[in-house]
Amino acid sequence: MTVLAVQSDVAELLDDLDVFVWDEPRPPPRDDVVVWAPVYGPAHAPEHVRDMLSIAPAVRVVQLMSAGVDPWPSMIPDGVTLCSGKTIHGGSTAEMAIALTLALIRDLPRSAEQQARHEWDRFRPNSLAGKRVLVLGTGDIGNRVIDTLETLDARVTGVSRTGEVTLDDAPALLPQTDVVIVALPLTAATTGLLDATWLAALPDGAIVVNVARGPIVDTDALVAELAAGRLRAGLDVTDPEPLPADHPLWAQPGLIITPHVGGGALGWQHRAAKLLREQVGRLDSGEQPRYVVDAGY
Amino acid sequence: MTVLAVQSDVAELLDDLDVFVWDEPRPPPRDDVVVWAPVYGPAHAPEHVRDMLSIAPAVRVVQLMSAGVDPWPSMIPDGVTLCSGKTIHGGSTAEMAIALTLALIRDLPRSAEQQARHEWDRFRPNSLAGKRVLVLGTGDIGNRVIDTLETLDARVTGVSRTGEVTLDDAPALLPQTDVVIVALPLTAATTGLLDATWLAALPDGAIVVNVARGPIVDTDALVAELAAGRLRAGLDVTDPEPLPADHPLWAQPGLIITPHVGGGALGWQHRAAKLLREQVGRLDSGEQPRYVVDAGY
Repeated sequence: MTVLAVQSDVAELLDDLDVFVWDEPRPPPRDDVVVWAPVYGPAHAPEHVRDMLSIAPAVRVVQLMSAGVDPWPSMIPDGVTLCSGKTIHGGSTAEMAIALTLALIRDLPRSAEQQARHEWDRFRPNSLAGKRVLVLGTGDIGNRVIDTLETLDARVTGVSRTGEVTLDDAPALLPQTDVVIVALPLTAATTGLLDATWLAALPDGAIVVNVARGPIVDTDALVAELAAGRLRAGLDVTDPEPLPADHPLWAQPGLIITPHVGGGALGWQHRAAKLLREQVGRLDSGEQPRYVVDAGY
Repeated sequence: MTVLAVQSDVAELLDDLDVFVWDEPRPPPRDDVVVWAPVYGPAHAPEHVRDMLSIAPAVRVVQLMSAGVDPWPSMIPDGVTLCSGKTIHGGSTAEMAIALTLALIRDLPRSAEQQARHEWDRFRPNSLAGKRVLVLGTGDIGNRVIDTLETLDARVTGVSRTGEVTLDDAPALLPQTDVVIVALPLTAATTGLLDATWLAALPDGAIVVNVARGPIVDTDALVAELAAGRLRAGLDVTDPEPLPADHPLWAQPGLIITPHVGGGALGWQHRAAKLLREQVGRLDSGEQPRYVVDAGY
């Protein structure tokens, strides 16, 4: 079984496997190619990827290096299994959600302004303890966020498709929510989910954190709430992305933007190699790989 | 039993107790005064406090509103028990330690600079996962920091006076430490503990976070390491404090300064009232109060 790796840094960590580094559009080995590891994220040109798939007929599994699977499902030929990279970046992305939430709650931007002025002014800080936090999405990222928030004494509600509290229940909870953290996959159902109505339902001073995908939050509606000084936000993802220099979002008050650096943190290659090794092991022993993306996704 | 409260906002939460709000230097009731709740922190003039103690002979217990007890022990008359406010601010201060650590690890200052320039540049982020963190102090604050760091997959070692790893063991661990978090009380033994030798033992790029008391870190030695670009730091406390506008620390690279806003976050009064109620209950039933500060402190 050959692993086609399109990134040599992951391949280096898999020297116990038969790895073929496929970093240019030349034919891969055709004998027993089964796991293919595309580069992290959907930033790479879909045409290039489609070409690669069409010349790799022995590919059985496409193992993504990201938790988000958009826009891959439509690009995968029949008979090929698509697997998400759930465990690879979850910890890093969850960490980013906590970093943004704490930076806003503890008002680090205010301290930074004071620091720039060499001004020591002990303002009264706020704290996560006792805050009501809604975590939208209880996959790997959401669950890790919930675990950490609980150690920080926040009052956390996880919202999932099938759990005790579902997305249908969320609107009724918004008026009693201090922080909303978005850790959902981008699907037809989640695109534009946090629209003007949802945002308007949040109380004054509430915080929106998005570490998932930009289009889940309605950018224009968020800009309006930020401009009014009614909400604050921490966005590691935006819509559009990359955010053009002249976009009005950049200059809004109460906003921290980080340039989609939630996942992909240093060290992810180790977790990627661990997952690839596990998947090859499962395929070798005739099992289904983990984290298969549903056909009905 | 009367609680002498010097802050009305805590008194308001204790309407089930006999509370005398003592916010000016007039004689307190002399009958059965037992618990006295000085204002948070040592910022209030020691002379004023000494005066208050001398005219309140019935005081049996001084319950601080802070985890740090400096400079109180030397000011407490014989026969009066001093109690620290351990559980009141621990969560808030631990949260600040996590906020500073994550802001540095995820390089939020770099994102802020890019945001100010309206520039979307996906740099390769770092992550706490797998990082070797030394938490100096395993009291309420340190233990909470450790719990949260563990949910974030950091490799954490707690250092305490009496535990498995002591302060004497710490120097040998510094060369393999990515982050040092200071959550120690300020004592003769901890003043200047993180001196030039300790800091020099840390590897390049290591992070020092101090949420305890400024004098535990040698400011001049830290300024030198920061100026050389060798270490980074997050300081919620400084020495001197408040930090004068012309102090060289302000302008060092790789440094986040917050103006001693770790404790005292909104909501602390609820935790203070909870502790005072518990202490009065223990005294009423003849028990020792909790968190007594050792005479040998």
